[in-house]
Amino acid sequence: MSYETTLDVRFRDIDAMGHVNNAVYATYAEQARANYFADVLDEDLSAISSVLARIEIDYHRPVELDDGPVTVAVSVPRLGESSLPMEYEIRTVDGELAASIESVQVAYDREAGESVPIPNAWRETITEYHGL
Amino acid sequence: MSYETTLDVRFRDIDAMGHVNNAVYATYAEQARANYFADVLDEDLSAISSVLARIEIDYHRPVELDDGPVTVAVSVPRLGESSLPMEYEIRTVDGELAASIESVQVAYDREAGESVPIPNAWRETITEYHGL
Amino acid sequence: MSYETTLDVRFRDIDAMGHVNNAVYATYAEQARANYFADVLDEDLSAISSVLARIEIDYHRPVELDDGPVTVAVSVPRLGESSLPMEYEIRTVDGELAASIESVQVAYDREAGESVPIPNAWRETITEYHGL
Amino acid sequence: MSYETTLDVRFRDIDAMGHVNNAVYATYAEQARANYFADVLDEDLSAISSVLARIEIDYHRPVELDDGPVTVAVSVPRLGESSLPMEYEIRTVDGELAASIESVQVAYDREAGESVPIPNAWRETITEYHGL
Repeated sequence: MSYETTLDVRFRDIDAMGHVNNAVYATYAEQARANYFADVLDEDLSAISSVLARIEIDYHRPVELDDGPVTVAVSVPRLGESSLPMEYEIRTVDGELAASIESVQVAYDREAGESVPIPNAWRETITEYHGL
Repeated sequence: MSYETTLDVRFRDIDAMGHVNNAVYATYAEQARANYFADVLDEDLSAISSVLARIEIDYHRPVELDDGPVTVAVSVPRLGESSLPMEYEIRTVDGELAASIESVQVAYDREAGESVPIPNAWRETITEYHGL
Repeated sequence: MSYETTLDVRFRDIDAMGHVNNAVYATYAEQARANYFADVLDEDLSAISSVLARIEIDYHRPVELDDGPVTVAVSVPRLGESSLPMEYEIRTVDGELAASIESVQVAYDREAGESVPIPNAWRETITEYHGL
Repeated sequence: MSYETTLDVRFRDIDAMGHVNNAVYATYAEQARANYFADVLDEDLSAISSVLARIEIDYHRPVELDDGPVTVAVSVPRLGESSLPMEYEIRTVDGELAASIESVQVAYDREAGESVPIPNAWRETITEYHGL
């Protein structure tokens, strides 16, 4: 199962080319992640001990203001010891695929400055939610 | 040879975690690209006929406000028929590697809605500049 | 009558202080204006011939991520020959007043580079909508 | 005397109208304020105990990408007990006035949740710097 969330496209998201700016896709992924953490894990993204290690974005078609709101489907393909990979599909209001995104979060102990195992509570919830 | 440009880190670039937000790295790459197009190709990024097809960002260490200005080194590893791949290294003011980025631009004819060969003038300038 | 619209608060709207950044209030006002133009005037904000001449923002209380979505009430106190003043009240999800904003748009002919009278169709619709 | 700082105009600052977005002027003022606090008061804007109470922006002419870098002149017209008003003039690279801004910061004790007198060290430095 994938998690789905809906995000408004703002006028400010559009750049001089008349489309949603390329960097804003990373913000859409971040907001989808924040919503996922709140809805699925009942956690606040800014409170949790994890860092973003990597993101890849494939742009399939431009998004204009009236292509919103966009839907972001979030799935977790597998779980590492410390790493939480996530895959996102961003679709326009008409259901067209605008971008595919992959990210890797790493559970992290800021005090110690090193990666740590993903908390068991998360592991169980995520495993069950996505049927891993 | 790689092209180098220096970018200020703004207070607004910092997010609730106290670091430059992950999406802002895509903006730094975009700005480096805009400066590259202006300085190397004498072109205005918003005027040119190309689209961003893909970006990958590896985050190596967080950037704080006083880690700026950051330096972005831009190189072009090779040239495709229509595609212009670019590699970026973002370094803090102390020279530490903060992120490695790869992007792919595609030369594009908006009227026709299809990719086109990279203009010869660009091909020659880029090939010479980076010693391809 | 005032027009009301609801806006999501994004993680990216929050700055290093942990609150919605001061500049983002101008973006909320802009988005409320865009929604007003779309819903009340059936116009696209980026297509219309007007410019923002002035904005004033009074910050009443900080907005945090879980204070969203925020509601923006937009009213038009009067209509000038060329100027369209707007007033906004931004409220948290709990109904607390976060900011009061005033803006002035001016109808503008970009070709001629000068202000022009507000289109009659707008004048009639706005006058009726707000009971001016 | 006024304090002057220079800010780059980013491609991302431009919106669908082809000009620096209206909200970005508040970001320019914020960055000028951050630079002022760093350079004149030797303080970190995110560390200091103050809140922004109010901002007014008058837009005089649009700013395009090649109008940058912009210069921001910051002056302090007077000092209140707790309030620090600031005035900003944003000029294009050609010296044309793009916007006039006024802001009011208030010294604030976050623990107590109330305004406090401006620290004496600031008061002395600011008074001397601007010849108040």
